[in-house]
Amino acid sequence: MYRSHSCGELRATDINKEITLSGWVQKTRDKGFMIWVDLRDRYGITQLIFDEQRTPKEVVEKAKNLGREFVIQVTGTVIERESKNKNIPTGEIEILVSEFNILNEALVPPFTIEDETDGGEDIRMKYRYLDIRRNPVKNSLMFRHQVAMKVRNYLSKEDFVEVETPYLIKSTPEGARDFVVPSRMNEGQFYALPQSPQTFKQLLMVGGMDKYFQIVKCFRDEDLRADRQPEFTQIDCEMAFVEQEDILTIFEGLTRHLLKEIKNVEIADFPRMTYAEAMKTYGNDKPDIRFGMKFGELNSVAQHKDFKVFNDAELVVGIAVPGGASYTRKEIDKLIDWVRRPQVGALGMVYVKCNEDGTFKSSVDKFYDQEDLANWAKTTGANAGDLICVLSGQINKVRAQLSALRMELAERLGLRNPEEFAPLWVVDFPLLEWDEDTERYHAMHHPFTSPKPEDIALLDSKPGDVRANAYDLVLNGNEIGGGSIRIHDKETQALMFDHLGFTPEEAKAQFGFLMDAFQYGAPPHGGIAFGFDRLVAILGGQETIRDYIAFPKNNSGRDVMIDAPANIDQEQLKELNIKLDL
Amino acid sequence: MYRSHSCGELRATDINKEITLSGWVQKTRDKGFMIWVDLRDRYGITQLIFDEQRTPKEVVEKAKNLGREFVIQVTGTVIERESKNKNIPTGEIEILVSEFNILNEALVPPFTIEDETDGGEDIRMKYRYLDIRRNPVKNSLMFRHQVAMKVRNYLSKEDFVEVETPYLIKSTPEGARDFVVPSRMNEGQFYALPQSPQTFKQLLMVGGMDKYFQIVKCFRDEDLRADRQPEFTQIDCEMAFVEQEDILTIFEGLTRHLLKEIKNVEIADFPRMTYAEAMKTYGNDKPDIRFGMKFGELNSVAQHKDFKVFNDAELVVGIAVPGGASYTRKEIDKLIDWVRRPQVGALGMVYVKCNEDGTFKSSVDKFYDQEDLANWAKTTGANAGDLICVLSGQINKVRAQLSALRMELAERLGLRNPEEFAPLWVVDFPLLEWDEDTERYHAMHHPFTSPKPEDIALLDSKPGDVRANAYDLVLNGNEIGGGSIRIHDKETQALMFDHLGFTPEEAKAQFGFLMDAFQYGAPPHGGIAFGFDRLVAILGGQETIRDYIAFPKNNSGRDVMIDAPANIDQEQLKELNIKLDL
Repeated sequence: MYRSHSCGELRATDINKEITLSGWVQKTRDKGFMIWVDLRDRYGITQLIFDEQRTPKEVVEKAKNLGREFVIQVTGTVIERESKNKNIPTGEIEILVSEFNILNEALVPPFTIEDETDGGEDIRMKYRYLDIRRNPVKNSLMFRHQVAMKVRNYLSKEDFVEVETPYLIKSTPEGARDFVVPSRMNEGQFYALPQSPQTFKQLLMVGGMDKYFQIVKCFRDEDLRADRQPEFTQIDCEMAFVEQEDILTIFEGLTRHLLKEIKNVEIADFPRMTYAEAMKTYGNDKPDIRFGMKFGELNSVAQHKDFKVFNDAELVVGIAVPGGASYTRKEIDKLIDWVRRPQVGALGMVYVKCNEDGTFKSSVDKFYDQEDLANWAKTTGANAGDLICVLSGQINKVRAQLSALRMELAERLGLRNPEEFAPLWVVDFPLLEWDEDTERYHAMHHPFTSPKPEDIALLDSKPGDVRANAYDLVLNGNEIGGGSIRIHDKETQALMFDHLGFTPEEAKAQFGFLMDAFQYGAPPHGGIAFGFDRLVAILGGQETIRDYIAFPKNNSGRDVMIDAPANIDQEQLKELNIKLDL
Repeated sequence: MYRSHSCGELRATDINKEITLSGWVQKTRDKGFMIWVDLRDRYGITQLIFDEQRTPKEVVEKAKNLGREFVIQVTGTVIERESKNKNIPTGEIEILVSEFNILNEALVPPFTIEDETDGGEDIRMKYRYLDIRRNPVKNSLMFRHQVAMKVRNYLSKEDFVEVETPYLIKSTPEGARDFVVPSRMNEGQFYALPQSPQTFKQLLMVGGMDKYFQIVKCFRDEDLRADRQPEFTQIDCEMAFVEQEDILTIFEGLTRHLLKEIKNVEIADFPRMTYAEAMKTYGNDKPDIRFGMKFGELNSVAQHKDFKVFNDAELVVGIAVPGGASYTRKEIDKLIDWVRRPQVGALGMVYVKCNEDGTFKSSVDKFYDQEDLANWAKTTGANAGDLICVLSGQINKVRAQLSALRMELAERLGLRNPEEFAPLWVVDFPLLEWDEDTERYHAMHHPFTSPKPEDIALLDSKPGDVRANAYDLVLNGNEIGGGSIRIHDKETQALMFDHLGFTPEEAKAQFGFLMDAFQYGAPPHGGIAFGFDRLVAILGGQETIRDYIAFPKNNSGRDVMIDAPANIDQEQLKELNIKLDL
């Protein structure tokens, strides 16, 4: 062992001990007659002192050449520090070094290894192994491990069994694009990497495994948006002999447990909301309910005058911004510009200032009188001093726009406190959603989701109205989990495939094994999957997942550190029976 | 919830309770006036009774139509059984059913869902979801989960951090064949699936992560021998600031912990043996030391007579088979046939019977006298009543042949007790091994393994004699783990690549990121990886891993249940910029 203690361990009670430490040189201060070195390892920082009076001369001389990030092993005595540092746990002591070895030298790192580094994203990714030495990244990875352990121990105690499902599976055109793997032994054929272990976990239920989970990598070959990764980690769960209520209860338990254990937050209220209600109230199926600003639908109180913009709109809807009446004209113009950005896409915004004296001043005073505006204030819940922002247009679009504005304003008003946690179940999702591109219905969740029995009759007449036994777990405006009760009989599954545009032959070729399995005694079952990268980030109080992943890929799906993907040689291609077609 | 209790839960203390159970019909016995059904779930079997006297008539009628593996939900009362079954925990009670639902019907399963099934391997794999309902498979998967949890909790307590490393990495021609993944976004380029997280765990050490582990899937595109899988699971570990001794101590601790917790076995002695000693004593680098039959090298006592076969041999070596003197001529001839099988490849076998009266009878009495044979007996440790089996030839071949014979005889003699556990460290492996096919040296472990400093001078003169800081953990004749202290400086790594036949350009192209990393302050480090599938199987007392894997592939790398790999459509190929080349 290269050390007797870690660099985070020694305290005043260790004074006079002879110890050996190993670690990295964080920084040196050379006063000529005295040199201090901050030695760092995973566990902390300990100050070393080289002192002309008390340290052998040649050791002091050697110490003068230490550079940042040199790896050294030192032996010495724990002594009391003259000027104590209250900010670090080892701040009462320092090590009077008697000898040391340089275990490895280091080039000057391309960015500073400090909590606040001078390195940009690109260079940090290229030298990720140096980035990981920084506390924010190192602590994020250790935090991730803690969360994973807590999840595993909780679910194991609840009798869940972690079962490893295969990574080399079969490609299915449904859903996102698969990554595929050419098979050398089966010429011309390909495996696919799983987008999720969905069918395997269902087969485990058919196999009687009853309560399954797995923390598992999944793969999607999508064009990457910011903060998406081609490989990501899921907490994948499934249970048999359960109804929706059972699943919600179990995973409410897991969520409470994690928030209690990790954040010491007790969740008093774990509300549920239908998809329809979430869309109506927040314009969004993953509302952040840590703050109000609920939607007020204004059609009945805004379409009775000569204002054509509103009269032509499918939906007129507003929110009350707390304290917004004090915004200047310029600030409001900026808000209007914000909603008109292409990313939001509103054509304009009507506003009403709710003055402290009870009067209203709006951008549409030409059309609406004080009584109208008072009705708007009532519908949006605006008080004196608030600003009402009103958007109008096609129902789905205007909801999305106002939801974006609501989130933006909450951010600006500091209402999205990362240390406050408000989970929410959104239930009764639609079974199908219309896809403009392909002009047909797609499964909103996936094709194995069961429709609500009372809605099955609508499958032919009003497919978009059929509700599914599907639910999302939302935390602070992020979808952290989603799942459903599954279909467990062959007939319903065939009906579903039919409505999704599969021919019976296609359904059999791709999912025949699952439909066969349903004929051999499949129990009722359902499950949920959590996006683990996101869950960890949110629990860690962050919005971006990248620092919670040891070796993330960039937006082109590249690992810039190892420089992958890369070319492979002809020999390899030939063995795989493929050639490039560029 | 479809049940108030599981089928393994109810006891005599529950009598008179109203309960609901769900599960599968294991079997039915219909006596006309009374029907018994064994209801099974993951937790056990509970007997149901339908009784004309006490059960509604229509319920009894419906029960008559229950087939094997139907999924049902029953409600009834716990009553005392008339004829108790001491063999199952629920054997004192049965359920007097008042009503039940058929949750799903089942076709007759293609094999019996019993501990001893009538289904062959192929059909069980095709219907793996039915196979998993059988106790031997179900229990193996649950056992695997328990072992994984114990590993994780032990290592976490020892301050190891589980870090997820990427699955989409870069192909390297060193080692086994990679599975590759064409990148759509990076035209003409490929990811590779990891054969192990080797370089990433080393980079984590450079990153200061200090103690890393991961239970992780790895991939090798090899021609599959029996009991090998293209995807397999590893417990992958790495530590910084350690020497070989530290690693052995830590993972000795893990092994002791697992054997104690899982098998209630205390390991008194955890021996270590050099590779050279293992080869000399057992002809094998993973000796099963649960039994003796150590090799006796006979050159000095067998090459002084006119027996040309021995005189021409590089090595003459024998083992003493306990009690083997009583084998008949026919039995011995069969043994000789066994060693001459192509899989073993010996040309013949000399034997010596050590008679109870102290005399010897051998197949080479023409050449050797009683004194010679007495010396052989002494060298092989043979006692009166034993049989000495002697092989001769080229040293490596003859050791492998005698090792195979030793294992076979131990199996026949019942010396390989699956409930006895004898771990062993084999240390000081050679750094390089000669490859006949490519006519050059390969890394025996991998190119990142450090040579013993005192042997580096031999790299040019006698590369085959250079020993590495490499070690294997052997359990009952199986290699369950292997690792090494790594190279951690750029110069030694470059030297190693050079000796492995890499040009500096090739080394840079493939492992430049690692050699760069070594320049920024890499600490001394080393690690180990355990084959988790094999470890679990051995702890479970089995020799084959297949039942410890939920969805294994067959020897052609196929998943016969989902029928993968499979063809993919032209559209997909085109997007990936590849075409088939059959």
